[in-house]
Amino acid sequence: MNYQDFIKPFVVPHNRKIDLKHDYDPDYADDSIKKKDADEVLTEGVALLAAYQDKLYAQSTHALLLIFQAMDAAGKDSVIKHVMSGLNPQGTQVFSFKAPSTEELDHDYLWRNFKALPERGRIGIFNRSYYEEVLVVRVHPQILAGQSLPPELKDDGIWARRYDEINHFEEYLSNNGITVLKFFLNVSKAEQKARFLERIDQPEKNWKFSVQDVKERGFWGDYQAAYEDMLNHTSTKHAPWHVIPADRKWFTRLAVAATIIAKFEEIDPQYPEVTEAHRQELQQARSMLEAEDA
Amino acid sequence: MNYQDFIKPFVVPHNRKIDLKHDYDPDYADDSIKKKDADEVLTEGVALLAAYQDKLYAQSTHALLLIFQAMDAAGKDSVIKHVMSGLNPQGTQVFSFKAPSTEELDHDYLWRNFKALPERGRIGIFNRSYYEEVLVVRVHPQILAGQSLPPELKDDGIWARRYDEINHFEEYLSNNGITVLKFFLNVSKAEQKARFLERIDQPEKNWKFSVQDVKERGFWGDYQAAYEDMLNHTSTKHAPWHVIPADRKWFTRLAVAATIIAKFEEIDPQYPEVTEAHRQELQQARSMLEAEDA
Repeated sequence: MNYQDFIKPFVVPHNRKIDLKHDYDPDYADDSIKKKDADEVLTEGVALLAAYQDKLYAQSTHALLLIFQAMDAAGKDSVIKHVMSGLNPQGTQVFSFKAPSTEELDHDYLWRNFKALPERGRIGIFNRSYYEEVLVVRVHPQILAGQSLPPELKDDGIWARRYDEINHFEEYLSNNGITVLKFFLNVSKAEQKARFLERIDQPEKNWKFSVQDVKERGFWGDYQAAYEDMLNHTSTKHAPWHVIPADRKWFTRLAVAATIIAKFEEIDPQYPEVTEAHRQELQQARSMLEAEDA
Repeated sequence: MNYQDFIKPFVVPHNRKIDLKHDYDPDYADDSIKKKDADEVLTEGVALLAAYQDKLYAQSTHALLLIFQAMDAAGKDSVIKHVMSGLNPQGTQVFSFKAPSTEELDHDYLWRNFKALPERGRIGIFNRSYYEEVLVVRVHPQILAGQSLPPELKDDGIWARRYDEINHFEEYLSNNGITVLKFFLNVSKAEQKARFLERIDQPEKNWKFSVQDVKERGFWGDYQAAYEDMLNHTSTKHAPWHVIPADRKWFTRLAVAATIIAKFEEIDPQYPEVTEAHRQELQQARSMLEAEDA
């Protein structure tokens, strides 16, 4: 499987504008893979990821930060579960960013994200992120109004500034060996409705559903506009966005796994080289162990 | 498989002293399981763990903290990888505690552990922990001498006080819904030697080995004494120690998985009950969704 080719339809270009609705079909699936083979292909992909992760961890110079954003029920939790189970949890860190706490609101909006950045050698996963600050905060102006930012900084230019700030932040991460990969799970409004009804109908899914989710759905158009503007301003060469078709869960998982594999092919992590000095030290260790028998 | 019975040989009693060398065989394996079936049994166990984890996460009242301590090459990393891969990384957090930083040394010894405690609904894993403060620090008195603790608190009573402090800390965790399970991976001195030689002989394992590891092996007897004293003073009803046979990796993994499953059987996590109010809310949500078609 050629991963670089496979993921091309998902990458948001950094040098021209996209039209979210017309350029990305939530129901897209690659013709070369059939649903009945999806489990097997995913298992192979996860094994490949685990092998890369092992080297990333051993080398301990690079880190990978995966950011997931989406409308409700697009499958963020499910993708994290199915693609990332099978990785070594010692090298994987997931942070879910919910509504900020009072302490977090007393800081700038990147503060809590900074604290959660992956260490070198690790794969960090942000389930939601600082991008909420140009999404939910933009769709609901009263959230921004309620934040303690100085009033003169809450002007109309705030979204353009935030895009710049975020691009600079991600460039800084890239310059420091932390590669950022961003995923927008693109679910259709019809499929969201079907999944909401499922959460109502299946008792074991009830706990993760509230009427508030349906009310939020009323802002669908505003959200799509905010996502499109975000994609058009923050998909950069060093930190590209990927619009992942999310109407078919089996394909969503494959697309996310393939995108991470393609990035690993570029990073190409390696087990640390053993220096001559270390080699000599190892022989000294061997002598000490063998001398125990004497 | 009866997990409660299976794990009995590993539990360190809280009401009588044990003799580490005579009571626990590093090469022990349960007769009922053959090595050739180990992979299959482990896969079943991990699937069971994943199902429990899903409920723990949904319920979000309890948390589980797994603490791993061992001599070098006993297999801590390997157990974490093989037993915990397959769990949902969104509900699993691993922290490796290395030599404390300057900032950490400016605090009490539980401080950095407190910060890493699992949130409700999660499984936290400590790869080494505050127990190092009664192990490596005890074996090497110069480490304690170099710490900034007030000199009058570095008297001979310090180990007994630390055992009490730790027991009180873990009782506090237990009282607050965080269940602590502790694992000492019990490897023999001969098996450690064999694994060290393997790390010298296999180039891809060289990076994780240094001559310092062999020097530390010179303190084997002191470590065993420190472990035994620790086990005898900190295996409590609410936070028991388990001495896991560690000379056969396939059995180590099964024993750890079984111990966690046995604890989950006691915790018995459940998906949240849907209240009558929530049920009505769900029906309101359904009406709103259906009205969209009108």
